[in-house]
Amino acid sequence: MTRTLQSYVHDAWWTPADDVSGTEVRDASTGEVVARVSSEGLDLAGAMDFARTTGQTSLGALTFHQRAVILKQLALALTDRKRELYALSSRTGATKGDSWVDVDGGIGVLFTYSGKGRRELPNARVQLDGPVEVLAKDGSFLGRHIRTTLPGVAVQINAFNFPVWGALEKFAPTFLAGMPTIVKPATPGAYLAEHLVRIMVESELLPAGSLQLVSGSVRHVFDHARLGDVVSFTGSASTADQLRRHDAVQTGGVIFNAETDSINASVLGPDAVEGTPEFDAYVRQLVTEMTSKAGQKCTAIRRAIVPAASAEAIVAAVESRIAEKIVVGDPREEGVTMGALASAEQRAEVFRQVQRLVDGGGRVVVGAGQDPEADGAFADPMLLRFDDPAAPRVHDTEAFGPVSSVITYETPAQAADLVVRGGGSLVTSVASADPQFVAELTRRTAAANGRILVLDRVDARSSTGHGSPLPMLVHGGPGRAGGGEELGGVRSVFHYMQRTAIQGSPEMLTAITGVWHAGADTRDDQHPFRKPLQDLRIGDRVVSEEREITLDDIAHFAQFTGDTFYAHTDEEAAAANPFFPGRVAHGYLLLSFAAGLFVSPEPGPVLANYGLESLRFVTPVSPGDRIRVALTAKEIIPRETHDYGEVHWDAVLTNQEGETVATYDVLTLVSKTPEIPAE
Amino acid sequence: MTRTLQSYVHDAWWTPADDVSGTEVRDASTGEVVARVSSEGLDLAGAMDFARTTGQTSLGALTFHQRAVILKQLALALTDRKRELYALSSRTGATKGDSWVDVDGGIGVLFTYSGKGRRELPNARVQLDGPVEVLAKDGSFLGRHIRTTLPGVAVQINAFNFPVWGALEKFAPTFLAGMPTIVKPATPGAYLAEHLVRIMVESELLPAGSLQLVSGSVRHVFDHARLGDVVSFTGSASTADQLRRHDAVQTGGVIFNAETDSINASVLGPDAVEGTPEFDAYVRQLVTEMTSKAGQKCTAIRRAIVPAASAEAIVAAVESRIAEKIVVGDPREEGVTMGALASAEQRAEVFRQVQRLVDGGGRVVVGAGQDPEADGAFADPMLLRFDDPAAPRVHDTEAFGPVSSVITYETPAQAADLVVRGGGSLVTSVASADPQFVAELTRRTAAANGRILVLDRVDARSSTGHGSPLPMLVHGGPGRAGGGEELGGVRSVFHYMQRTAIQGSPEMLTAITGVWHAGADTRDDQHPFRKPLQDLRIGDRVVSEEREITLDDIAHFAQFTGDTFYAHTDEEAAAANPFFPGRVAHGYLLLSFAAGLFVSPEPGPVLANYGLESLRFVTPVSPGDRIRVALTAKEIIPRETHDYGEVHWDAVLTNQEGETVATYDVLTLVSKTPEIPAE
Repeated sequence: MTRTLQSYVHDAWWTPADDVSGTEVRDASTGEVVARVSSEGLDLAGAMDFARTTGQTSLGALTFHQRAVILKQLALALTDRKRELYALSSRTGATKGDSWVDVDGGIGVLFTYSGKGRRELPNARVQLDGPVEVLAKDGSFLGRHIRTTLPGVAVQINAFNFPVWGALEKFAPTFLAGMPTIVKPATPGAYLAEHLVRIMVESELLPAGSLQLVSGSVRHVFDHARLGDVVSFTGSASTADQLRRHDAVQTGGVIFNAETDSINASVLGPDAVEGTPEFDAYVRQLVTEMTSKAGQKCTAIRRAIVPAASAEAIVAAVESRIAEKIVVGDPREEGVTMGALASAEQRAEVFRQVQRLVDGGGRVVVGAGQDPEADGAFADPMLLRFDDPAAPRVHDTEAFGPVSSVITYETPAQAADLVVRGGGSLVTSVASADPQFVAELTRRTAAANGRILVLDRVDARSSTGHGSPLPMLVHGGPGRAGGGEELGGVRSVFHYMQRTAIQGSPEMLTAITGVWHAGADTRDDQHPFRKPLQDLRIGDRVVSEEREITLDDIAHFAQFTGDTFYAHTDEEAAAANPFFPGRVAHGYLLLSFAAGLFVSPEPGPVLANYGLESLRFVTPVSPGDRIRVALTAKEIIPRETHDYGEVHWDAVLTNQEGETVATYDVLTLVSKTPEIPAE
Repeated sequence: MTRTLQSYVHDAWWTPADDVSGTEVRDASTGEVVARVSSEGLDLAGAMDFARTTGQTSLGALTFHQRAVILKQLALALTDRKRELYALSSRTGATKGDSWVDVDGGIGVLFTYSGKGRRELPNARVQLDGPVEVLAKDGSFLGRHIRTTLPGVAVQINAFNFPVWGALEKFAPTFLAGMPTIVKPATPGAYLAEHLVRIMVESELLPAGSLQLVSGSVRHVFDHARLGDVVSFTGSASTADQLRRHDAVQTGGVIFNAETDSINASVLGPDAVEGTPEFDAYVRQLVTEMTSKAGQKCTAIRRAIVPAASAEAIVAAVESRIAEKIVVGDPREEGVTMGALASAEQRAEVFRQVQRLVDGGGRVVVGAGQDPEADGAFADPMLLRFDDPAAPRVHDTEAFGPVSSVITYETPAQAADLVVRGGGSLVTSVASADPQFVAELTRRTAAANGRILVLDRVDARSSTGHGSPLPMLVHGGPGRAGGGEELGGVRSVFHYMQRTAIQGSPEMLTAITGVWHAGADTRDDQHPFRKPLQDLRIGDRVVSEEREITLDDIAHFAQFTGDTFYAHTDEEAAAANPFFPGRVAHGYLLLSFAAGLFVSPEPGPVLANYGLESLRFVTPVSPGDRIRVALTAKEIIPRETHDYGEVHWDAVLTNQEGETVATYDVLTLVSKTPEIPAE
């Protein structure tokens, strides 16, 4: 008997009762039944509660960096067993190239989020958004924005086209944010998602309750969702619109994030005539987007918008490239470069939509389609041509397969207008070597797009392509594209957190954020450079002695460094400068003397000063002025995988009047223990 | 006959036809009819189109800074005529203090956004979000996020309580983003909003089509709204839920931002017992929130959550403070400290909701309410007491007037649980001097709040108060609070812009953003420090000569500056450090020598180096190494109101092997012309 896929809930595998028949899932190329799937009898409400309690607790015990380390370990565990995923992936109709996008692409998202989580988030549970706002002149009342984890569960409802990538690209930011996930894969390819979760579970890396899987329907998810939960959906615009209307979203405060297929465009610039590298890159990319994953990508090019004069050449070039490069068939067969659609139902749907396009004014100019009676869900690539570029169907109808349509324009403004008629897209690409054309098109169309990719001779080879969302760039778009946003590095982590403005005294902001705020308590008990990370506390401070800046110092520094700028060397010229009273000390001299004032020369836990942030010279220093520096440990960031961490020091230089001369943050690496670590 | 309020559409004043009767608007204290209001016959669709065309064009011609300058000029124009606004404001039932919040508070938002717009946004039309993402190892393919103005119109639907502030707090970020606005005030107080717009129009500062006013209904606004438009609503949660369900929002891509009244809480800490400054601050604030604007604030405290042991003391203290400080009456009368509710209807509604609270378990312990038959819409402050802190009504029912309820808790976790039962709030405040309690309460409740204010003895006097949204902090909250976000400085500007990921070659990213990207064209024709701003272009560059760093240099620098850190002075100790090969040059020495290498000493357009950003030391420099620096104009930001501007220079230090030694941005002030300006 065919196996019924399992779900993973309450940290255990769950199987439907024996008498549940479930839905058949078939091999895309052979039509053979691979598995059955059903969630009948599964306690979805219980699974969601388990996430909100056990999942929130276990993830909430970890910092951003600790979660990031687990993401990397999961990526490595999946890499070890990715052959298993590739084998299952080919049953979905995917070629090796398609599987690479799905499997390695998905694993790549984990690696990227692991790196970004450690570089761009603090090693803490609270994220600070933007600088301090001083709300009272005396500094006793400050404002700051923080982000904290949403208290609920994130349910992801995925599309059928990328069972691995689709699950991981939502899981990574959610996990990093500290929110537990429930994955609900689409029925075609559900066996691949099940195996993905199995590998992750078997790695024993997952905190309790942080990941659950529902193989089968989550039809009533919104009945159990509540404020603090997020539902992230990828799929058709019509399904998204239906889900969004639920009361839980409309009035219950449940966040609904949708990424839907859209009618994406690719524009050929007027300069990119036949024979230019941009023309060739355009054709290569168009054929790739039509055929990779058999065109079943939310990001695929549906509208090729080309200058009227180039239309014939484009059609011919696409036709010959398809003839030369594309072999449709079972992806397990030698030489096949384009696989099957996900299912026979999907193929039928694609042909229905092609008919709608034809009824709306399109002519099929390349490819005629496979015999719809064949066993496997195969379809040939098809290019349509619309004579009327304003025909509504070309801008609103999607055949979710290897199908694109060519329309033409005369002016840049027309090209932009055609792009925008898509009603909001995930991505538009443009092939052109003319920066002015590119800038104008971008200006006119950016607000209608989540992403814009520019192809020219410089990046034609290195470009990752129109159809590939990257983990560091946002994926999603306005209007027809769903109005949501995914990926984009830490940007998507923040979709699973709440931003809150905090107002209070420096001491209270320090307690809430874990970052020292000017005006909060300080400790001067010992030079803080002598304290290893394990002993150092925010607020530990050194206030230096005073040092007088002499005219000789300035003259000598000018001569020694070569920085003979007139403000340091010529009294009269300096006095004529609107910002200086006369000859003043070099800013770099002040920085250097400050370092001499706060240094603790002997070997110790402070290993290196690796940088500086936000330096501002506030008050000029004249010969005879005396400066001193106060250095306070502001933020302490232990590294999870090293014997040292980062310490950010708040540096304030003042003069003998107590006026602020300069402010900046000194960035250092500090050993966790008194021992000096190996790198 | 009573005057009918005018609308302002198509840059002209519009009056309903003579036979239109409209709705009466009455003086809150006397019940006298002040004006009539109607938009019958007004072409709302036409006004929206006018905004999308004329308004978008005129605002699109301006940069962020130019718009910011206009905001300041508008603020000054309103300040000049604010007496007129105060006079009308008193007719809404507002005391002088209430009017100050509305009128001066509103003008203050314009000032803040003018300042923030110039400090935190570029002098351009495109905003860059986050750093460059290098997408190809050879640097030929980069990613960057930009924000561009949404192409539609922003319609603001305002609440009755703050006719001036409500309009301006939405107008300022919208205008700064480059989106035209249509203001629709609530009927009570519509005469005040009309006069506000009149002053703004008469100032002749408004770009064509950038501001329109509809006095009366905009019932069909969503029928005319489309992708690219924003509707921002402030008012009741139930109205927001109704508006949100429109197809234009659900499937049309229209952005709907709601800020609704919520059941805000104020928590008294266990430490803040009677006699502490925190107890007193808590009581003062509670009475202020109950009585200012007669309690008609979305942000007012509805739930006073106090330790069981302090409940009696709080009730007594509130009662005596009200008795001592609060005089209810016509705000134009001497000695009155609390005015009327907005209308007789509002008063009736408040009494209905108080009855619901009583039916749900509340007892009125302070105040009994004014005679509902009185002419003016007066109500006494009322404090209720619930014996069951979990009674649902206290957490879900709002009497939008001078009404709060006291409930009690035993543990911090209970206090947090009670806060969260509000289902999402605009603001929660906490009075405590115990950082641990405050941190725990914040951790447990931040995700349920848009803002949290901590009162302690340090900020008790300087705090701006629980009920006051500030332009630099976000206003809005999850769930019951509407799920939207306003203010928060530039954060709300971005709600009127689309974020788009851009991928392309350095040259194309430079063309699109107006900011130089590494790898794009450079020009070495003349030392760029000799070029005034009017001649300087991004990509203008100087590449310095090489300079060798000798052991003597390092030793001398150590002695001269006092920075005798062992990595610069002790070969053996330095070599034991995991990051250094042996003695290395000071980072500050490298910076100083670099300045000596790129300096152009004679007086010229470069006026000052005012700071530095993002300095990272990448490769250590050993004695005998030779460094050089390349400095490229990356971003040019002319100041609108000065004869100079800011130039950010990309600085890259390399060694004799071409390895990167350090990278940073040098920030300078540069004269617009060859003349040196006065400050």
